[in-house]
Amino acid sequence: MRIGELSRRTGVPVPTIKYYVREGLLPAGRLTSPNQASYDDAHERRLRLIRALLDVGGLKVAAIADVLAAVDDPDRSVHKVLGVATDLIVPKYADEEPDAELDAAREEVRELIARRGWLVDDGYPAAEALAAALAALERVGHGAFSSVLDAYADAAEHVARADLAYVAGRAGLDDLVESVVIGTVLGDAVFASLRRLAQADCSARVYEGDEGAETGNGRTGNDETPG
Amino acid sequence: MRIGELSRRTGVPVPTIKYYVREGLLPAGRLTSPNQASYDDAHERRLRLIRALLDVGGLKVAAIADVLAAVDDPDRSVHKVLGVATDLIVPKYADEEPDAELDAAREEVRELIARRGWLVDDGYPAAEALAAALAALERVGHGAFSSVLDAYADAAEHVARADLAYVAGRAGLDDLVESVVIGTVLGDAVFASLRRLAQADCSARVYEGDEGAETGNGRTGNDETPG
Repeated sequence: MRIGELSRRTGVPVPTIKYYVREGLLPAGRLTSPNQASYDDAHERRLRLIRALLDVGGLKVAAIADVLAAVDDPDRSVHKVLGVATDLIVPKYADEEPDAELDAAREEVRELIARRGWLVDDGYPAAEALAAALAALERVGHGAFSSVLDAYADAAEHVARADLAYVAGRAGLDDLVESVVIGTVLGDAVFASLRRLAQADCSARVYEGDEGAETGNGRTGNDETPG
Repeated sequence: MRIGELSRRTGVPVPTIKYYVREGLLPAGRLTSPNQASYDDAHERRLRLIRALLDVGGLKVAAIADVLAAVDDPDRSVHKVLGVATDLIVPKYADEEPDAELDAAREEVRELIARRGWLVDDGYPAAEALAAALAALERVGHGAFSSVLDAYADAAEHVARADLAYVAGRAGLDDLVESVVIGTVLGDAVFASLRRLAQADCSARVYEGDEGAETGNGRTGNDETPG
């Protein structure tokens, strides 16, 4: 198909498609004449993946390029692509200066990993990100948040098992690797939304119990003006 | 204390503190002379909260202003502040054009909410965000991800119960409201990191079982070059 048709099918404007090609996110079309290129279903699929990572996953163009390079790497393994996708999507705290809170949080993360028996190195970026988040909680007087860490870890294991089961159910390696990337990025968005819905439900039951929440209109009660 | 001392204690540069005051994030200090203002522990605490929302929560300054306004609202209720914090942190999809995928995803979310018996309105922003994420998955050929939705929802309920238990354990209303905000924003970062660690563990067990993962060095095996 021509670039105009690709644009129509995906809703991505032609100049944006050209920009993705220039940035190496999308392979160039096959030249059918000096001024015309032809695109196929693989382009369409890749374009939808880019938009999903950008719009729903909130990734930056440079991060998407790195994720796609891992997907396209002939030497990729599922475990390796999972690692790349994971590392890129974890917030970076490179300029955070080490301090007593961060040291204590790192130790807490090491203990958690040992307690859970997780087969991960404690230098893993997600372990650093977790330590940074726990240190930030400590600094704002919420070190007690650590008390819910194992409840969170239980839930994380439940989700990770579902993630891997989903990934394992995909047919080819291409599909499998893409599933890892999509599941990691979009799965965050799905979980964050579900957590908020479940919180709203809990909150309605606990804090609005006397105001009609039990009749099923928790979020539309008197003192509610959402949005 | 003077602004220099506040800067020293929190690690936030003086010009940045002045910027937060101008933007209404931080109350002005008490004037002790025409050119000098005095700051107290409440300023220090608020400043740490702003930095946590910014650095770890990834919120923009405008969103932080809205969250803090809800925290400072004299008519606030826990349920209301939870709603505001939640709405602001959920990605917005205002410019997403309705299409068949989004319509189907909204219906799926309605069914999920009914199935879980959650006391939430299906127009709740997190419900819209969930529908947008599911529609994005469908568009990239991962509509089957819906099969793990209930596993995610189980985990989300588990986390939400831990969140509310943590919030309920805080003493005063000020503290309680602040806990909701912090827990919502930083809790996302904590969970996302834990999910990645649990995924890496699952992945090491499933995909690297023959390569020494069982001896405990899953992320440091031969084909691994993380980060």
